[in-house]
Amino acid sequence: MQSAQDDRPPRVALLSAVLDLGYLAPAFREACPGIELRLGAELGALEEIDAAVCWFPPPGLLARMPKLKLVQSLAAGIDHLLADPQLPRGRPLCRIVDPGMAAGMTAYVSWAVVQHHRGMRAYVAGSAAGRWQEQEVVSPRRHRVGIAGLGTLGLACAEALAAIGYPVRGWSRSAKQALPAGVAGFHGEAQLDQFLSGCDTLVCLLPLTPQTQGFLDAALFAKLPRGAHLINVGRGDHLVEADLLAAFASGRLAAATLDAFSQEPLPPDHPFWGDPRILVTPHIATRTDHGVIAQQTLANLALLQKGERPLNLVDLERGY
Amino acid sequence: MQSAQDDRPPRVALLSAVLDLGYLAPAFREACPGIELRLGAELGALEEIDAAVCWFPPPGLLARMPKLKLVQSLAAGIDHLLADPQLPRGRPLCRIVDPGMAAGMTAYVSWAVVQHHRGMRAYVAGSAAGRWQEQEVVSPRRHRVGIAGLGTLGLACAEALAAIGYPVRGWSRSAKQALPAGVAGFHGEAQLDQFLSGCDTLVCLLPLTPQTQGFLDAALFAKLPRGAHLINVGRGDHLVEADLLAAFASGRLAAATLDAFSQEPLPPDHPFWGDPRILVTPHIATRTDHGVIAQQTLANLALLQKGERPLNLVDLERGY
Repeated sequence: MQSAQDDRPPRVALLSAVLDLGYLAPAFREACPGIELRLGAELGALEEIDAAVCWFPPPGLLARMPKLKLVQSLAAGIDHLLADPQLPRGRPLCRIVDPGMAAGMTAYVSWAVVQHHRGMRAYVAGSAAGRWQEQEVVSPRRHRVGIAGLGTLGLACAEALAAIGYPVRGWSRSAKQALPAGVAGFHGEAQLDQFLSGCDTLVCLLPLTPQTQGFLDAALFAKLPRGAHLINVGRGDHLVEADLLAAFASGRLAAATLDAFSQEPLPPDHPFWGDPRILVTPHIATRTDHGVIAQQTLANLALLQKGERPLNLVDLERGY
Repeated sequence: MQSAQDDRPPRVALLSAVLDLGYLAPAFREACPGIELRLGAELGALEEIDAAVCWFPPPGLLARMPKLKLVQSLAAGIDHLLADPQLPRGRPLCRIVDPGMAAGMTAYVSWAVVQHHRGMRAYVAGSAAGRWQEQEVVSPRRHRVGIAGLGTLGLACAEALAAIGYPVRGWSRSAKQALPAGVAGFHGEAQLDQFLSGCDTLVCLLPLTPQTQGFLDAALFAKLPRGAHLINVGRGDHLVEADLLAAFASGRLAAATLDAFSQEPLPPDHPFWGDPRILVTPHIATRTDHGVIAQQTLANLALLQKGERPLNLVDLERGY
């Protein structure tokens, strides 16, 4: 049975303390022409808002929306919501799972693995300088890639890297039932050391939770093969930055490709800039499609109104 | 029934007019400790030679080996053998198919597709210069990749690019029965234009035959979408170099990644060097594993001695 309220268009707030989310408005209007969007300083009466689409929402604001039916993260992660100490934990909280987002991530990670493993940077420089100079060609079959975190993005990366020909292993908190063909599975604390010992390249795609904060630290680096390559496409706070620089100094790590940082943009005086062992990219590995954000948000409102389970509902106990 | 001759170790010549093939000797000795290898100027009595492993063999030399049982290309291609006008066409001629070789090629091609599509070169420069600057993130789902040539290497590339998330299409001379999931197939002259019209990146992995020489010419470039990217990992003679430069001038092509050239090394005064639209790599996309060359050569000799069909026998009518 639907209430009378269902007949009016939804009232959706786009909330962020760090970004202007106005860029999402056209996608929402296309998905639902009558939608009432509330943005920036013009939120109107907070008790009227049905759903909030969030990226680092202003702390305490969601708690002041008594009729909120849905808290929708506009990303795959929800760490930016958990940063709000007054996050209303009794409301359905959903994240976006966008298959197109996996494609962007998989492209970035595949590129980064080959870029380091095959020394492509030197070839690009050679082409600019007119230098015909071969390096040793090491087959992908002799370069082991490990993926920490086997969510949608991690599984997609594992599958693509295995299709290229890399021996791929994956690690997750709990055992996974179905891994892509040719991907070796490890899980839990008990198998972490064994997993790490076979990662010539380690890709971090974990969710950021209190347990995984600082996961990429000196103790972890010490368990990798000497001269390993780290790719962090998780969150900046997975990485202990000082430990990374120390791991270069000791030779434990040879290279790092980093797309997420504790402070973004990375400050101009940060030691990562210009370090030839580190590639800094400005958090561009992938993007959620605007249309997918709008469609999943509206679908979730409709599902909740029918009393059904929304898409990609987050388990706040687990943290993802 | 085996002849008495079968009991002696094989006599194998390593023949090249352009390279010292001594680097293959350890792999042959490991695969067959008693082998009698003939190299360089020390070929001995030519009538004693059982098999010739070749890379651009000195023209006319194979014709002077009357008891030759096997002509073995050390690569996937045989164009370097067809360059010998006196090639003894009555003898079994085999090429190497090395699954590890597909991995190297797939890694290179995947990297090259992403490098251009995602503008990774600018990010590498930004990291060196301390510049946090996003470019538009276009999903792989909106960048169509076409593979011309669906042999072992082409199929492996198609599968890996589809696993990343690119819409992939393939073209081959004759129809292919089994294409990887999600790969659209085109074949023959009749479907070539339709194939080309949907290639934002075109990868050339054709065999070099009289029919495919100069395949990458002005007429072909005119059928690609404007601003397309060409990756040539076939042979240098697939490409009409002057037409490539003209296609840049007209805006038809935006970028080219080239790993094979009509003249190698590419001459120091060649216009491709230093052109920001062109990436020149020194024929390093992949390498055949030395052990695989030795093992397939010896396996082929054994199969021929038993009167059986050797591995990867070339059909000289087709040219591959």
